[in-house]
Amino acid sequence: MPVLLDIATLVTGKMPRGPGHLDLVPEAAIAWQGDRIAWVGPAAELPAVFTREERHSARGGLVIPGLVDCHTHLAFGGWRADEFEARIRGESYLEIAARGGGIRSTVAQTRAASREELRRRCQAHLAGMARLGVTTIEAKSGYGLTLEHELALLELYRELREASPQRIVATLLAAHVVPPEYQDRRADYVELVTGQLVPQVGARALAQFCDVFVEEGAFSIAEARQILLAGQAHGLIPKLHADQLTSGGGAELAAEVGAASADHLECISDAGVRQMAAAGVVAVSLPFASLYLGQAPLPARRLLEAGVPVAVATDFNPGSAPSYHLPVAMTLACTMQRMTPAEVLHGATAVAARALALGGVTGSIVPGLSADFAVLEAESVNHWLYHLRENACVLTVARGQVVWRATA
Amino acid sequence: MPVLLDIATLVTGKMPRGPGHLDLVPEAAIAWQGDRIAWVGPAAELPAVFTREERHSARGGLVIPGLVDCHTHLAFGGWRADEFEARIRGESYLEIAARGGGIRSTVAQTRAASREELRRRCQAHLAGMARLGVTTIEAKSGYGLTLEHELALLELYRELREASPQRIVATLLAAHVVPPEYQDRRADYVELVTGQLVPQVGARALAQFCDVFVEEGAFSIAEARQILLAGQAHGLIPKLHADQLTSGGGAELAAEVGAASADHLECISDAGVRQMAAAGVVAVSLPFASLYLGQAPLPARRLLEAGVPVAVATDFNPGSAPSYHLPVAMTLACTMQRMTPAEVLHGATAVAARALALGGVTGSIVPGLSADFAVLEAESVNHWLYHLRENACVLTVARGQVVWRATA
Repeated sequence: MPVLLDIATLVTGKMPRGPGHLDLVPEAAIAWQGDRIAWVGPAAELPAVFTREERHSARGGLVIPGLVDCHTHLAFGGWRADEFEARIRGESYLEIAARGGGIRSTVAQTRAASREELRRRCQAHLAGMARLGVTTIEAKSGYGLTLEHELALLELYRELREASPQRIVATLLAAHVVPPEYQDRRADYVELVTGQLVPQVGARALAQFCDVFVEEGAFSIAEARQILLAGQAHGLIPKLHADQLTSGGGAELAAEVGAASADHLECISDAGVRQMAAAGVVAVSLPFASLYLGQAPLPARRLLEAGVPVAVATDFNPGSAPSYHLPVAMTLACTMQRMTPAEVLHGATAVAARALALGGVTGSIVPGLSADFAVLEAESVNHWLYHLRENACVLTVARGQVVWRATA
Repeated sequence: MPVLLDIATLVTGKMPRGPGHLDLVPEAAIAWQGDRIAWVGPAAELPAVFTREERHSARGGLVIPGLVDCHTHLAFGGWRADEFEARIRGESYLEIAARGGGIRSTVAQTRAASREELRRRCQAHLAGMARLGVTTIEAKSGYGLTLEHELALLELYRELREASPQRIVATLLAAHVVPPEYQDRRADYVELVTGQLVPQVGARALAQFCDVFVEEGAFSIAEARQILLAGQAHGLIPKLHADQLTSGGGAELAAEVGAASADHLECISDAGVRQMAAAGVVAVSLPFASLYLGQAPLPARRLLEAGVPVAVATDFNPGSAPSYHLPVAMTLACTMQRMTPAEVLHGATAVAARALALGGVTGSIVPGLSADFAVLEAESVNHWLYHLRENACVLTVARGQVVWRATA
């Protein structure tokens, strides 16, 4: 049973005294067996049974639960750096999409990429995430948009999941945009998704979630409802890209279908806030997308005050959020969304785990849960999120295995 | 004479076709002798005289001029992470200052720190900057606020300058805030600065610039004028912290005294923009401060359109900008200030050099200038600034010496 010692402060990630506080153990130790946490507590009380085992040192650092990035578009071909400049020069996201840029441009580059090329890119991104302390990653399809290409992306995620101690949770996002071949017959595409893709993905357990981008230029509320209900019928839990660029009733639909999360929500309505709170839907905030698109972020304080749990994720994708740096997204959640460091820490651990239906699996450091944690060179969570650096993480353990260790 | 080869694209940093464009050399090479660039051009044309020398590989990367961080408060004791949370909870910067937090809190911690402790901290920050490609750093005093402590900070900068190939440019910022001991006799403090500090700093050439924080709670326009003119009389070039939290005529004063730069400018007036343009004063934008204080950034487009050169810097300090990550500040300048990647690249190289009166010394890669450059793993400047990562820099050369090399 490996042991992690020399922890100055352990943040368990439990939320004991309200969301603004952190549950801390000073001078702590963690012991784990296989992929599960066996013991957590003050180092002085570490039972003798653990003391002759494999030892790791936290070097006097801060230890937090492994970070959970609950919204990424991990597998894609190419980049879209030129659109970054085009947006700065004044073109809108919807205008760029309308002239063939945006998601459709990445769809073309993803379809053109070999499986090996996509695997190599995903592995590089996952290694970068490991360096940052990220141990669980949600990964969406959505740049294939044919039966064959969407299944291939989910198969790639399965391969990656089986090869890595990082936990990779797959989401079917066939309803990302209507693909070019179906421009004039969108009902046929919805039929392809609900009649073929969803049943095959469900039967082969290739994904756990079904997601729809509800937006002008993407899918309507009625189409989204149809797709999400089909997903539920085949065991896929609903998620939504909702109310990002316009307020379209996406949050309300998330509440109606009992989605695990509604993501983006920059333009959420008051009714949407109330209904999400009543239905217990997690709001996933994506500060990079707000920053890169020059939008006001989602109203985090309004959501939190209404009782909606708010997660923080990167939205990593080659268009509106070209960064997998979750700690920077967390700092942005503090500065742009006025979330406290404690709220943000929970938002990228326990709350994010809940958005992935992993509440009893990861997201906090308690016995029985997955041995997922990160060691940071920082005095406190406040200090970590405030002092923005390249990377403060020096050791990452995912499912009990060391996936990153900085050279001393 | 060392040579840098395998450059996919070289960005010279010259501004040939207007500020929105970059001067590029594909498949380039650079040769230098001592601390000066000797030759720059297509690798195929590299003169034979250089080819048997010390070789470095850019590994097919992008090469840019060494970054110039033209506004930092490098030496300080302690941190102020708790104020980060206090601001999120709604306390304003001025309120925190009024209850003894803010700059005065760092002054107390800096005075209490040993010279060795401050040196060790500065060296760690400078090493972090080297990893990011930063080869020139402006460093302000301003957390001492006594004759003895201000001189000690500038002496520390002199030691650091002599010990490192990075170029460290010192600025006297004794007029940061009125120190607690002078609360009820501010004129005496201004007299200490103008009558003793400025003459000693000038005589001993301990700083090149004299800076004043013009703001409610700091110094008035009249006090600033008095201090800056005293500085000029002793060979110190004026700089200002101007119009950050309120519009107070700081930009106009910068134009009046012929300052090298006016920094912050979040609240600059129209008259200030016009007068800075007419006087040729560089505007230094500090996106981290805007982000951390939740402010709208300076009106970069309005300044650029009026003909004011806009630099980009970190403002690294333990309160409003606790990050030395200049590339992230540059990405924020793109997203928050709507500056193009090309404008931002120039803003953190040639324009920043001009803000430090180093226009003919560093900031672009041309023969005769200092051999200061950074090798980035990126396809283009657009791609580098868009794909926000921990660090894309793999090799940094400052005054001809390798100060950072990533392990392959």
